[in-house]
Amino acid sequence: MSSASAQASTASALTVPVPLGERAYDILVGRGLIGTVGSRIAALGARAAAIVTDEHVGPLYAQAFSDALQTHGLRTSVITLAPGEATKSYASLERVCDAVLEAKIERGDLVIALGGGVIGDLAGFAAAVVRRGVRFVQVPTTLLAQVDSSVGGKTGINSRHGKNLVGAFHQPSLVLADTALLDTLPLREMRAGYAEVVKYGLIDDARFFAWCERNWRGIFEGGMERDEAVAQSCRAKAAVVVRDEHETGDRALLNLGHTFGHALEKITAYDSARLVHGEGVAIGLNLAFRFSAALGLCPISDAERIEAHLTSVGLPTRLSHVPGGCGTVDELLDAMAQDKKVKGGSLTFILAKGIGQSFIAPGIEAGKVRTFLMSEINASSS
Amino acid sequence: MSSASAQASTASALTVPVPLGERAYDILVGRGLIGTVGSRIAALGARAAAIVTDEHVGPLYAQAFSDALQTHGLRTSVITLAPGEATKSYASLERVCDAVLEAKIERGDLVIALGGGVIGDLAGFAAAVVRRGVRFVQVPTTLLAQVDSSVGGKTGINSRHGKNLVGAFHQPSLVLADTALLDTLPLREMRAGYAEVVKYGLIDDARFFAWCERNWRGIFEGGMERDEAVAQSCRAKAAVVVRDEHETGDRALLNLGHTFGHALEKITAYDSARLVHGEGVAIGLNLAFRFSAALGLCPISDAERIEAHLTSVGLPTRLSHVPGGCGTVDELLDAMAQDKKVKGGSLTFILAKGIGQSFIAPGIEAGKVRTFLMSEINASSS
Ligand SMILES: NC(=O)c1ccc[n+]([C@@H]2O[C@H](COP(=O)([O-])OP(=O)(O)OC[C@H]3O[C@@H](n4cnc5c(N)ncnc54)[C@H](O)[C@@H]3O)[C@@H](O)[C@H]2O)c1
Ligand SMILES: NC(=O)c1ccc[n+]([C@@H]2O[C@H](COP(=O)([O-])OP(=O)(O)OC[C@H]3O[C@@H](n4cnc5c(N)ncnc54)[C@H](O)[C@@H]3O)[C@@H](O)[C@H]2O)c1
Repeated sequence: MSSASAQASTASALTVPVPLGERAYDILVGRGLIGTVGSRIAALGARAAAIVTDEHVGPLYAQAFSDALQTHGLRTSVITLAPGEATKSYASLERVCDAVLEAKIERGDLVIALGGGVIGDLAGFAAAVVRRGVRFVQVPTTLLAQVDSSVGGKTGINSRHGKNLVGAFHQPSLVLADTALLDTLPLREMRAGYAEVVKYGLIDDARFFAWCERNWRGIFEGGMERDEAVAQSCRAKAAVVVRDEHETGDRALLNLGHTFGHALEKITAYDSARLVHGEGVAIGLNLAFRFSAALGLCPISDAERIEAHLTSVGLPTRLSHVPGGCGTVDELLDAMAQDKKVKGGSLTFILAKGIGQSFIAPGIEAGKVRTFLMSEINASSS
Repeated sequence: MSSASAQASTASALTVPVPLGERAYDILVGRGLIGTVGSRIAALGARAAAIVTDEHVGPLYAQAFSDALQTHGLRTSVITLAPGEATKSYASLERVCDAVLEAKIERGDLVIALGGGVIGDLAGFAAAVVRRGVRFVQVPTTLLAQVDSSVGGKTGINSRHGKNLVGAFHQPSLVLADTALLDTLPLREMRAGYAEVVKYGLIDDARFFAWCERNWRGIFEGGMERDEAVAQSCRAKAAVVVRDEHETGDRALLNLGHTFGHALEKITAYDSARLVHGEGVAIGLNLAFRFSAALGLCPISDAERIEAHLTSVGLPTRLSHVPGGCGTVDELLDAMAQDKKVKGGSLTFILAKGIGQSFIAPGIEAGKVRTFLMSEINASSS
């Protein structure tokens, strides 16, 4: 492929700039990008790229992608890991760092994450620490990774003390969200990522939520709506990240639905057969609005509208939807209190005054959470 | 001890500011600091501190230091590792990160490195990545750590591909160089650190080199000269770091003597029984000036003056001083070419026009290095 035609195709992609000063970069969103952006990656000036991927994604896309890069003069190598959350470990970090060094990646060269959030977080962390930082490109292959984890520079692995507790802020040099890659994504993973799309509407963009209600089928089917939803989600996340790169304030809004969601993931022992992250988020979003309504902050009709939409796309919304059960109120509270969003003993929630009107609510008393959870559990058992 | 008296003692310390914008911090240099700076550390606003140390240093100093911090209301815990370079490993990183999390260190709390460069590099890296960055205090206990490794924010571990290849730039919030701690340091380690002190004079401060020639005994004996030498070295290093925090240019000057030195460390398989880092640097400094003289850049009398001084303090200066031999010319060249200061295949050296007049010399042909090394080896065997 000639460089001119590559540029023509790139030009048809949607571009979302992330204006982070000297760490600024672009997110490109479009169908078929990975076959056509070799020139764009080569323009970063690297001589070599180590592509990190997993055993599901690698066989589908690594070869074609690697070929596209080689055409533009990059030396490439592929590092393939087992799929799944367990891959975000110290052992994998060592494996990836050593493989990147083995591939003779120097400071001007690239580590490229080709995969979902697991690969993005792990490869990004490796890129942050190999030679104290080499450049990094995200090629997210799940909807969750395209709309959330690939944007914002948070990278990391899990510790036995909890998820994502060890890592680095390391911004990518480029993010390529090729929406065609989602055609092979299992429906359940697609739905899980969609919960994060909806989240952006709920945080501060009621019009985007309404757009999602009307257009979700196009997102799932791979129409233009998919590209638009990904780009709009990236814009929303980038805006928050730019305001608060290192998560000392505003960025916490992105945790809407996540305090409940993380507690459920913990209670289901991070067993993806029972619950994947986005399913926990879907339940968490609904609960955050129901809790807001219970506290008299938000009309219950908003919570009902959210529940109706999540249900129509096939996402769970209630504690009773957790396969194998959601545990007792005490177990849920314990799981929430251990979440890192607890500061100095009190609970911080993201609550809302309505769709698109969420806010950070520190210092929520455990008693109020307990009462709410009790009523949720009773409602479902009655 | 009252906070007022603590402040009085702190005030008698020498203070070297490191003006790195929002990452600015102070280096305090003085005798007996660790017993008196509890208030200074407490003033950083942390509630807890995890002290990382090794099995040589911990038994000597950890208890008293920990007590001094507790007096000022800090919750403390101590993590003790095996001494030696092998501790800068992925396995130790995991151990330290998990222990820091176990100690419930949050973002506002502290990791404190109490040890030499090994502990400083490892604990600093752990601090950089636990929760994507917690604050970090350096309490260097070797001369090398006080004058070099604790200043500048480079942290890291070793990979099977080489030393310090995995790590982070993470500036400390405070450096406490208590010069009394060096009283228990083995003489050989003291000498090794002294090579780095001399280096600062050789880089760009001929007056400081002359001062060292006159005052080195006071440094070794623990007089006022020791505090002055440490403070002056920190000032010199800080000035370079401030000009080039992330080592993209000028900071390379600090590698004077290190290209040869690292090659010798590699050839002696990092076996500290044969050669410690500072001994490699001492030989490297002498060779850098001899090489400069051989290239006609610098008077040979300057090299001779350096050699005389290093010899008088008991440091090695020649290839023939490496116990067990320095390998062949080819082995030396190979070891240098694998050093990370090689860019795009050509060798970068730090050379000098005279004492205090060093400069970065990229693109030195391997042939010239070969000729020089050959003559050095022949000179020693004849
Ligand atoms: N860094 C951040 O800001 C951030 C934000 C949110 C989530 N995360 C992290 O993201 C991770 C979850 O990411 P995820 O949901 O993408 O999970 P994932 O990476 O595990 O991918 C889900 C599954 O889909 C497979 N897959 C990926 N792309 C595919 C494709 N195109 N076709 C077929 N199969 C494909 C994967 O192999 C895996 O089995 C979690 O570890 C979470 O902590 C990070
Ligand atoms: N980060 C940087 O910028 C930088 C710069 C230079 C060197 N380094 C690193 O520093 C390391 C070498 O540091 P080092 O020379 O301090 O070695 P070290 O930490 O191994 O200490 C040397 C020995 O002295 C012992 N010791 C330390 N303090 C003591 C004391 N007060 N009393 C008695 N014994 C004591 C230690 O237990 C060890 O056995 C290397 O890993 C090197 O890569 C880093």
